[in-house]
Amino acid sequence: MTIDIIDGGITAPQGFKASGISAGIKKSKLDMALLVSDTPASVAGVFTTNRMYAAPVGLCKEQIKDGSASVIIVNSGNANACTGAQGVVDAEAMAEITADCLGVGSDKVLVCSTGTIGVPMPMEKIEKGIPMAVEALTEVGGPVAAEAIMTTDTVPKMLAVELNIEGASVKIGGMVKGAGMIEPNMATMLAFLTTDADVEPAALQKCLSGAVAKSFNRITVDGDQSTNDTVLFLANGAAGNNSLNEGHPEWDTFVSAVNEISLILAQMIVKDGEGATKFVTVETKGAASDEDALMVCRTVANSLLVKTSWFGEDPNWGRVIDAVGYSGVEINASAVDIYYNDFCAVKDGCPVGMDVAEGISKVIVAEEFGISIDLNMGDGCDKVYACDCSYEYVKINSEYTT
Amino acid sequence: MTIDIIDGGITAPQGFKASGISAGIKKSKLDMALLVSDTPASVAGVFTTNRMYAAPVGLCKEQIKDGSASVIIVNSGNANACTGAQGVVDAEAMAEITADCLGVGSDKVLVCSTGTIGVPMPMEKIEKGIPMAVEALTEVGGPVAAEAIMTTDTVPKMLAVELNIEGASVKIGGMVKGAGMIEPNMATMLAFLTTDADVEPAALQKCLSGAVAKSFNRITVDGDQSTNDTVLFLANGAAGNNSLNEGHPEWDTFVSAVNEISLILAQMIVKDGEGATKFVTVETKGAASDEDALMVCRTVANSLLVKTSWFGEDPNWGRVIDAVGYSGVEINASAVDIYYNDFCAVKDGCPVGMDVAEGISKVIVAEEFGISIDLNMGDGCDKVYACDCSYEYVKINSEYTT
Repeated sequence: MTIDIIDGGITAPQGFKASGISAGIKKSKLDMALLVSDTPASVAGVFTTNRMYAAPVGLCKEQIKDGSASVIIVNSGNANACTGAQGVVDAEAMAEITADCLGVGSDKVLVCSTGTIGVPMPMEKIEKGIPMAVEALTEVGGPVAAEAIMTTDTVPKMLAVELNIEGASVKIGGMVKGAGMIEPNMATMLAFLTTDADVEPAALQKCLSGAVAKSFNRITVDGDQSTNDTVLFLANGAAGNNSLNEGHPEWDTFVSAVNEISLILAQMIVKDGEGATKFVTVETKGAASDEDALMVCRTVANSLLVKTSWFGEDPNWGRVIDAVGYSGVEINASAVDIYYNDFCAVKDGCPVGMDVAEGISKVIVAEEFGISIDLNMGDGCDKVYACDCSYEYVKINSEYTT
Repeated sequence: MTIDIIDGGITAPQGFKASGISAGIKKSKLDMALLVSDTPASVAGVFTTNRMYAAPVGLCKEQIKDGSASVIIVNSGNANACTGAQGVVDAEAMAEITADCLGVGSDKVLVCSTGTIGVPMPMEKIEKGIPMAVEALTEVGGPVAAEAIMTTDTVPKMLAVELNIEGASVKIGGMVKGAGMIEPNMATMLAFLTTDADVEPAALQKCLSGAVAKSFNRITVDGDQSTNDTVLFLANGAAGNNSLNEGHPEWDTFVSAVNEISLILAQMIVKDGEGATKFVTVETKGAASDEDALMVCRTVANSLLVKTSWFGEDPNWGRVIDAVGYSGVEINASAVDIYYNDFCAVKDGCPVGMDVAEGISKVIVAEEFGISIDLNMGDGCDKVYACDCSYEYVKINSEYTT
């Protein structure tokens, strides 16, 4: 399997156009992105499980039920969350206005919003912005669209890959935003994937759900889950391949490529996490089950004490083992091993030798490192990707919304 | 019921002596406390549920099984956690040395440690320190003992109350430490209660468990639970009352007093939380169950986004409702109300009017305020006590252990 990383983000695959414009929702910044497939595409989506989900999330859930869509309109600066019945009306209006401008059915338009919550959508600005976004559509619009969905992100985050399926060049593109707080109200993660492969909708959903589980659902900045988290995937078939499904001989190739692009994009979010100075992979193995392993990973990666110690480059394995202990999963306290990269810091629940702090310190001065916890109980394993908690995080998130 | 707050901490009740000395475990600070009842006392205890619990926690659990104890020896500076088999030997040795010095059975001695984890106990210093602590015992030793158990606590935390039971004056004293990180390795909460009331052991345990559930188990600084958390309660009967149990006519009076002293001591911990500038009571009512209400309280109170917004006095109700949404409990998104003290900020899931930020701001400039969440679904309710997350918290916890 050959997968090449290429330029272009979401417009790298054939048959997609995108744009990013300033509709005036935010002051003098790009705040509206549009993605259009030339033809109706298969669609898949994964959404926040937050019960206070935003109006556009509810709309998207409905719109993707028939497995077909061709347009995604996104605004930053306003999350359209906690906006009641008017929020639903506004999200639907965004779909309708976009559909009218493009001459497609409004049931083919998906809507995403990210920004301040509890503030009515500035519909006058939206109404003026959408035709501008349509006007600006271009086959090389991926990068500007990636910029338009940014909030406190410090860099636009996009990626595209090319692979070969039965002799046809197939491309997959993606862009993400998030792990910055929004205006600065919510941590919202939005991810958009495109491909010119022809993929059956049910297979596309299965592929996306699997990829999200091991990528976007394995990252943590602060453990807070937003009302707007959304991952959408459009597949328009412009590559001309035979339609992909689970029975296709190249299915695994395609799935691997989607998994890889999702993982890299997800890791970009953590690396651009608010105030982040460290990127840490927390792995757990030897757990009684994969679920237990994941719980240990999450507990360690979300521990405020662990995260602040990473920031301070404090060789504090004690906070890690403490979090393992309160994760709630079954452990044998005298069988827990902890590694920092390849350095064994804890063996059988006790620190190894007198130079543990020194050994850990050598590892954690790096910007990226791994912590591996072996519970020595079973075959369960999993990993998550996390960042540290710095002064800058507190600064960014303690500033006024007003 | 009349309960008066009095001086003296754990030695306010009759028949208790205490001391605090420097054994050299920490540099030039008090690091060893001793509490002795003149006569064998009823004992009750509540311990961390962390599976990596420290050696002295295991020892205490065993020692209190017969419901009787008279001595508690405490050291700060070393947690005796993750110290393997040697840690157990050392904890037992601490009990035996103390017992020998006092001429009591070692099964009457409880041991608590708090401090750096994974470092062998400096037993030479302990062996020298214990006789010094015995020598220093005095009937007014409560305050110095409260000082000796401090770590990053900024103030000693103690309290005593006096109540009348069947004409007899009964006193209850207490001291706590915690919600400071230890050396700076672990967040450890230790709490010690004494009373001169005569209380049957089983009733004492029930009383303590109930009080802890609504006090020490309802506070949060950073959501991390230590390997050493311990609450111990000694009742020596020196007041001469008829033995208290659940059938005693004054039982409820005694229980109320224990609940009150526990709650005040627990709140002292939060107010002295590392870097804390705000004390916030998070209450949830109208939940489908009390368990749901508690889950909502904990999720809000442990949200890093919520805690940093408190620090910044940011009127960010959005982060509160976001945490409600991802708490995992059943909610009706369009029925959630949120109050800041008496100010209604959110009604039916939407902000109330355009002056919400202003109204919230007026409340949260205070050092203490309450957030009340009404899910309007049922009768479930609970509350927790929390502090904010400040630069100082990150500073304290990102510094080197070494």
